[in-house]
Amino acid sequence: MMCQPAGPDRDRLARAALTWIAEPGDAQLGALLQQRSPAAVIAELTAGTFLPAAPAIPGLDRARQRWAARLGDAPTAATVDAWRQAGIRLVCPGGPEWPTQLEVLGAAQPCALWVRGQADLRFACLRSVSIVGTRAATAYGAHVTTELAAALAERGWTVLSGGAFGIDSQAHRGALAAEGVTVAVLPSGLDDPYPRSHHELFLAIAGHGALVSEQPPGRTPTRPGFLVRNRLIAALSRGTVIVEAALRSGALNTARHARDQNRPLMAVPGPVTSMASAGCHQVIRDWGAVCVTGAADVLACLSIGAGDLVPPPQGPVLPRDELDPVSRSVLEAVPVRGGRGPARIAVSAGVDFDTVLRCLGELAAGGFVERCERGWRARLPRNRRPRTVN
Amino acid sequence: MMCQPAGPDRDRLARAALTWIAEPGDAQLGALLQQRSPAAVIAELTAGTFLPAAPAIPGLDRARQRWAARLGDAPTAATVDAWRQAGIRLVCPGGPEWPTQLEVLGAAQPCALWVRGQADLRFACLRSVSIVGTRAATAYGAHVTTELAAALAERGWTVLSGGAFGIDSQAHRGALAAEGVTVAVLPSGLDDPYPRSHHELFLAIAGHGALVSEQPPGRTPTRPGFLVRNRLIAALSRGTVIVEAALRSGALNTARHARDQNRPLMAVPGPVTSMASAGCHQVIRDWGAVCVTGAADVLACLSIGAGDLVPPPQGPVLPRDELDPVSRSVLEAVPVRGGRGPARIAVSAGVDFDTVLRCLGELAAGGFVERCERGWRARLPRNRRPRTVN
Repeated sequence: MMCQPAGPDRDRLARAALTWIAEPGDAQLGALLQQRSPAAVIAELTAGTFLPAAPAIPGLDRARQRWAARLGDAPTAATVDAWRQAGIRLVCPGGPEWPTQLEVLGAAQPCALWVRGQADLRFACLRSVSIVGTRAATAYGAHVTTELAAALAERGWTVLSGGAFGIDSQAHRGALAAEGVTVAVLPSGLDDPYPRSHHELFLAIAGHGALVSEQPPGRTPTRPGFLVRNRLIAALSRGTVIVEAALRSGALNTARHARDQNRPLMAVPGPVTSMASAGCHQVIRDWGAVCVTGAADVLACLSIGAGDLVPPPQGPVLPRDELDPVSRSVLEAVPVRGGRGPARIAVSAGVDFDTVLRCLGELAAGGFVERCERGWRARLPRNRRPRTVN
Repeated sequence: MMCQPAGPDRDRLARAALTWIAEPGDAQLGALLQQRSPAAVIAELTAGTFLPAAPAIPGLDRARQRWAARLGDAPTAATVDAWRQAGIRLVCPGGPEWPTQLEVLGAAQPCALWVRGQADLRFACLRSVSIVGTRAATAYGAHVTTELAAALAERGWTVLSGGAFGIDSQAHRGALAAEGVTVAVLPSGLDDPYPRSHHELFLAIAGHGALVSEQPPGRTPTRPGFLVRNRLIAALSRGTVIVEAALRSGALNTARHARDQNRPLMAVPGPVTSMASAGCHQVIRDWGAVCVTGAADVLACLSIGAGDLVPPPQGPVLPRDELDPVSRSVLEAVPVRGGRGPARIAVSAGVDFDTVLRCLGELAAGGFVERCERGWRARLPRNRRPRTVN
């Protein structure tokens, strides 16, 4: 089925295969990955001989049958490489682009993420807010969402959402209008992002931010997939804002994840005569969600509630002169304009290719460099903006 | 200045005079009344010789000068009687119509209240909600207020407010539309209730509820008077709902009193684009006010937060057969229709006039009788209404 590369590459390829053979949020797989390396899980499935799990995992035998049935179609190294050429990269735990805040999910953490777009996912999510809500947004909800997302983006915050109709797409559009970074966490493979009518929007998001999915290319969304996806929207960001949600809206599912993850949960109120705001009022009244009316309220809430996450960077996280000498030489080889590929950067810096990849990842997470069309470029320190918080 | 009746009547008349010579909420008077009877305070002022206060009351000497300057015009027994003939009665602490929940105010408790209208003030306030908000109400705020007040009135709750333009008057109108009881706490004397353009509304409120003021007849409202009045709106009811309030609205002053009195504080959200709702969102976010969207939310909040007050009566507070024999004979002398004056009731029941007044007060507080145009009548047990909570 697949060639057998060695070491970390074997685990990467195994994780790519696992995103194919198991559904996102598969409980048995999450439990098994706490006992085995990804490569060992795939090797057992390929060989058809299994060591017992210890501690035992209920339902593991049936899960292995499910996984094995899909193993024949799982992506090979060549497929993963072809996807990468098409702009869809694999981001794995332990890698420099992996958003470490996903640890909050425990065994429900995805085994890998597929990412498309210019932004470094880890860095983009360091200062990010999820804005979600009903597909059936009112003019009021659409207006408030756009204003809120734009105001957060202007202050250097990434706006996360789910790419759906209504509130989600307005959140992305508001961030884009302010030339900010926005990340869409999608329920489908990134070769054919769902919904298709947002094709132009997804192109714009990839150009300024990132599209993210647990599903490998080729997968179409399923109803449980939407709900499982919502845990990622909550877990990737520092807080979640619900703008409009009816009482049974899927947005309340995201809100529940945020609450269960002990992440700050906020809601924008609206007219009590509008059923589109009823879910917002419910989470304020019954779940202790913070009532927020604009970006200033959201940031005030996050600065109180985000003590368990990294402090908000005002530019690069580390001063440049605290970098180790190798990273500094790599950084000096990254151009400010145009971009340069990692191989050329490695030559300029006088380090090997693996080292340059590791250093670029760390430099990206620290806010010193960012991906661009032509490889990597240095980030200029963000200008302190004179605008006051609204 | 005044004739000197004996005993409790002397104190009543002294309280009437004190409402004239001191402003509502006068701190020195409140402190002095914790050391002296009302009659003793007036007697000292009349004689111009003062015993020292112990403990000492800062500012008492200047306060006494202020009070003495007004003493010459203070109402006499004849004046109080004339006002009573005109429908404005004096309600004093210790009397049967006195709302004992005003004790929460401590030394800031009014020395007496002037009341006009059919309702027994104490009984009306037992199950009451204050609904207040901005004078500059929007169509949204006016609509929500009317609906909320009507829904509470339909469920047998009294709606308290301040009689002002905007939210206040809509609260009264909503309760009246549902044929409910409503109480207006006014900043002016009840002979000329403020604002005058609400003359018809005040007539309707007096017909189904009560007008209340700390100010004696003849007084016009002052700006500090409005703010001091607000503490009564909060203290008389079991909880306060803010419907629309700008960030500096006087309604937030009432909200602050409710919070300081540890009474349930609620606010109705609205569009975040409407400055008329900004104060509501502020008290929800920063003061812990409960976000309420209708009568069901308000009642749910009160049933949790009102443990320190009497339980909600579902009709008379006491079963009729737990009444003492004298009260029962008085109750049997009160007609169900038409009404009868206390003198005739005393004759029918075979008790003296003082006893009949005391018993009628207790029976009113217990929900057995109520005032009406022609004296007193018995209350029929409230029908359990089949309507469900919204």
